[in-house]
Amino acid sequence: MAAVLAHHTYGKSRVCLTRVTRQADRHDLKELTIDIRLEGDFAGSYTHGDNSHIIATDSMKNTVHVLAREQPLPDLESFGLALADFFLAHYAHVSLASVRLAEQPWRRITVAGQEYPHAFMGGGTEQRTCMVSVTRQERRIEAGLEDLLILKTTDSAFRGFIRDRYTTLADTDDRIFATILTAAWQYRDTTADWNRCYDLIHQTLLETFARHQSLSVQQTLYDMGAAALGACDAVEEITLTMPNQHRLLVNLQPFGLDNPNEVFVPTHEPFGLISGTLRRDSRGKA
Amino acid sequence: MAAVLAHHTYGKSRVCLTRVTRQADRHDLKELTIDIRLEGDFAGSYTHGDNSHIIATDSMKNTVHVLAREQPLPDLESFGLALADFFLAHYAHVSLASVRLAEQPWRRITVAGQEYPHAFMGGGTEQRTCMVSVTRQERRIEAGLEDLLILKTTDSAFRGFIRDRYTTLADTDDRIFATILTAAWQYRDTTADWNRCYDLIHQTLLETFARHQSLSVQQTLYDMGAAALGACDAVEEITLTMPNQHRLLVNLQPFGLDNPNEVFVPTHEPFGLISGTLRRDSRGKA
Amino acid sequence: MAAVLAHHTYGKSRVCLTRVTRQADRHDLKELTIDIRLEGDFAGSYTHGDNSHIIATDSMKNTVHVLAREQPLPDLESFGLALADFFLAHYAHVSLASVRLAEQPWRRITVAGQEYPHAFMGGGTEQRTCMVSVTRQERRIEAGLEDLLILKTTDSAFRGFIRDRYTTLADTDDRIFATILTAAWQYRDTTADWNRCYDLIHQTLLETFARHQSLSVQQTLYDMGAAALGACDAVEEITLTMPNQHRLLVNLQPFGLDNPNEVFVPTHEPFGLISGTLRRDSRGKA
Amino acid sequence: MAAVLAHHTYGKSRVCLTRVTRQADRHDLKELTIDIRLEGDFAGSYTHGDNSHIIATDSMKNTVHVLAREQPLPDLESFGLALADFFLAHYAHVSLASVRLAEQPWRRITVAGQEYPHAFMGGGTEQRTCMVSVTRQERRIEAGLEDLLILKTTDSAFRGFIRDRYTTLADTDDRIFATILTAAWQYRDTTADWNRCYDLIHQTLLETFARHQSLSVQQTLYDMGAAALGACDAVEEITLTMPNQHRLLVNLQPFGLDNPNEVFVPTHEPFGLISGTLRRDSRGKA
Repeated sequence: MAAVLAHHTYGKSRVCLTRVTRQADRHDLKELTIDIRLEGDFAGSYTHGDNSHIIATDSMKNTVHVLAREQPLPDLESFGLALADFFLAHYAHVSLASVRLAEQPWRRITVAGQEYPHAFMGGGTEQRTCMVSVTRQERRIEAGLEDLLILKTTDSAFRGFIRDRYTTLADTDDRIFATILTAAWQYRDTTADWNRCYDLIHQTLLETFARHQSLSVQQTLYDMGAAALGACDAVEEITLTMPNQHRLLVNLQPFGLDNPNEVFVPTHEPFGLISGTLRRDSRGKA
Repeated sequence: MAAVLAHHTYGKSRVCLTRVTRQADRHDLKELTIDIRLEGDFAGSYTHGDNSHIIATDSMKNTVHVLAREQPLPDLESFGLALADFFLAHYAHVSLASVRLAEQPWRRITVAGQEYPHAFMGGGTEQRTCMVSVTRQERRIEAGLEDLLILKTTDSAFRGFIRDRYTTLADTDDRIFATILTAAWQYRDTTADWNRCYDLIHQTLLETFARHQSLSVQQTLYDMGAAALGACDAVEEITLTMPNQHRLLVNLQPFGLDNPNEVFVPTHEPFGLISGTLRRDSRGKA
Repeated sequence: MAAVLAHHTYGKSRVCLTRVTRQADRHDLKELTIDIRLEGDFAGSYTHGDNSHIIATDSMKNTVHVLAREQPLPDLESFGLALADFFLAHYAHVSLASVRLAEQPWRRITVAGQEYPHAFMGGGTEQRTCMVSVTRQERRIEAGLEDLLILKTTDSAFRGFIRDRYTTLADTDDRIFATILTAAWQYRDTTADWNRCYDLIHQTLLETFARHQSLSVQQTLYDMGAAALGACDAVEEITLTMPNQHRLLVNLQPFGLDNPNEVFVPTHEPFGLISGTLRRDSRGKA
Repeated sequence: MAAVLAHHTYGKSRVCLTRVTRQADRHDLKELTIDIRLEGDFAGSYTHGDNSHIIATDSMKNTVHVLAREQPLPDLESFGLALADFFLAHYAHVSLASVRLAEQPWRRITVAGQEYPHAFMGGGTEQRTCMVSVTRQERRIEAGLEDLLILKTTDSAFRGFIRDRYTTLADTDDRIFATILTAAWQYRDTTADWNRCYDLIHQTLLETFARHQSLSVQQTLYDMGAAALGACDAVEEITLTMPNQHRLLVNLQPFGLDNPNEVFVPTHEPFGLISGTLRRDSRGKA
């Protein structure tokens, strides 16, 4: 057989975990979904069905459970590092371990104005994410968020774009700007105050979006990314992705009515998808 | 042809609407998804393709847009009533109009500690719902919520159930109780302070869940429903539905570890589904 | 507490099952998803946390597995009946057992022009369904299908509907008619050749849809239902539900092009939803 | 501001298209979902809100519609090339146009044993896909399929893997092997008989899966990829991805029953995810 195995990787996806930490005065709750992917000397399993180097994906799942018991879980980043490091430390033939973690948001239920110590409600669609990649040479940490719905009802224009045979969209000075933000940022090092960095970037992205006088989705994306780099020195680079969740102004003229930017139809497809990566300028301070 | 048309109904589903109200100092935002269903004298369209009585579903969608412009939209209930009433008032051959509304949750972005006047973020998975049904004889309003994730890490037992050949589940005194609550309640009248009633019931359901010493999902459901009836006199009846979103304690014994209710696996299927309807006792006060 | 438990029911949902029957020359494969719901004397669990009458939903799942081993599984209907009958026979305080079954479609992979004896590929989105409801007085069987995508590119008109202030839709003599069919039919008895009946009705619905000169979705729905009643004497009543999966003709005039019903945009929301129930006329033959 | 725009790209996603070709004796139907992504000199829109180089994503959608009218659509590959070439030919500042296409499967309804000329039913979950990437220097075509469910009830073993503290999975000689196949292959050139190549590879993947005596998912993946390379000379490289859709044998011992590989529970998460890329060996014939 003259085919060559050019690349191979395998792992366990969607390992779901609920971790309760029982403090004296309250319980802490974390729910994570974890994807593990390994590279290394597994070729024999592909080419000859020789499984002697194979770590069963079921064992990877077990490893998540064991480490969740043996370690504290203060944030995604340190648990992801512990997991990735484990696979390289235990198995000499593993060359890369990558671990992706996503945290489901929970917040405490308020009872009589106080946070209740062991009852929680869903905190929204937004997920905090983390991707740890560890090789024998390097350890990299990327953090992020996804599915953060944001919308502003004004301060958004879009005009002056190319107008040719294929253009029917009108210029506008005032439209709704809605998106489902995904962000991912690279940390410079493998130590930082992960939760503080996350909160800083999260809040900076929200505030910049809210305040921005937008001339295009692209411009708002850029200013949000630049503000995030400015807010957290530990971050080297950030990528933002913004699907444009169009709200179309309804034409009410057939019914003898005007529509001063009050009634819109949200549409889900097709959608514009805008993406950009900003890097800290090595010649100066972001 | 000896077949009889025993029942027929039609309408427009998933009419999506974004409504911005531009106040002097801030913008208000509502996003709704609306399903309209009519009954009446439409049989000729089924049996003979005679469409002379048919209100095109596209026209129903237009009607939503027109009413959204012509009317304020303070809550689901009054907008749903306006829509349902419209169809009966305008079309003599309509005998029933039912309108279901669901509101997507948005909350204001906080900038420098203040709510920003025209920027919003997604408020979670939970949806406020409403079902209005209007006939020539009667107008009924049911309100509710759905997809409210709630979880408590303790104060939940399940023991003493039937134990026979088909039973393998162990008794437990301390388990995680997680569910995705759906609730729907019937109002006595067609006038009430809808937003206040909703907030009252919503908060009562959350507080009762948090505080409950649960002997079964059924018991917690019952006490939550009874508390809701107690909190809001305008409500006649409430139905709660609770899928049991099991969190299974991981067996760590094979790895030489104990697991004092700390590490769990969330499962999505199969799931227990518990439901109950509570009615105000006409002989007394709930 | 002056609240009354007006209604209660509980059960296990989404019990998933893979059943392999190892014949001498081939393997047969069935994959089902089963929802079980019981009514009966369970009120004590709701009102007092007394679980002594509770059949754990985990035990219901076990029961599915045991019966899947102890019984053949020739069709949804007989397995659903066996399950529902089991709950009434074993537990004297159960008054109603309803079992809903849905079958995931698999078909054999063809190798060198022959069906391979133990390899399968997904058979589509369409699911065969069945709902069995058994009480101490009555046993009822409803069968059906769901998620059957059907589309015709011509022989569909829609004209002559009400035209008033709220109407903007134009009459058309030739449009695309696409829907996602759900059908459910009641059998007269609890014995029949279930697979043959299903195949007859399934094929009759498809053929009638294909051949129909449609004046409205309503009319096509009616003729499909009447044809199904005509094809299978064992069926008393049939309900069809048809969401109108609109394909909108694209306006190419801004680009100097005509569009003779060739380029369309499929839309998913909003959608018309048409439903009707046909019953066999007791005075004659359908 | 000392942030650098390191990378940027944008486009239109989920442009949905229904294309009917009205032949004399029958209608042909294609439904596609198309994602367009451009790279080029768009930085001014990000950094200064200068949209003068921006092709509105709405115009990209219009372009799809215009080309769908002006061109035949015999296969994804030639339509994708036409689209990608268009953007480079019309806009001098575009450096890369990538177009991803996915085709929803439809097949003709059979009436009285004959394929009906203009009525269709859904053809399954499987989608044919294509990715075209065109720069000023190069044109690349990748084709593929996704969401192809395949399952074999025997001829699958998994044994001899690493056994250590983290291993609880037992060796097995006979398990169910189920996956949701994604495949993508690179063509050597930009001309080929695309439909014939697709059919060849599709059938080769199915047949190899069916016949394989599997020692691991990895091995079956490898042999399927090698067979695909062997079947179609136009293909340089193929990547297969196989999520292991585990079917767990149910333990019926608590109920006094054996389970000779007959009753299984399908699980959806977590799942093993196996991936591999095979390249034609340049030293010989695959």
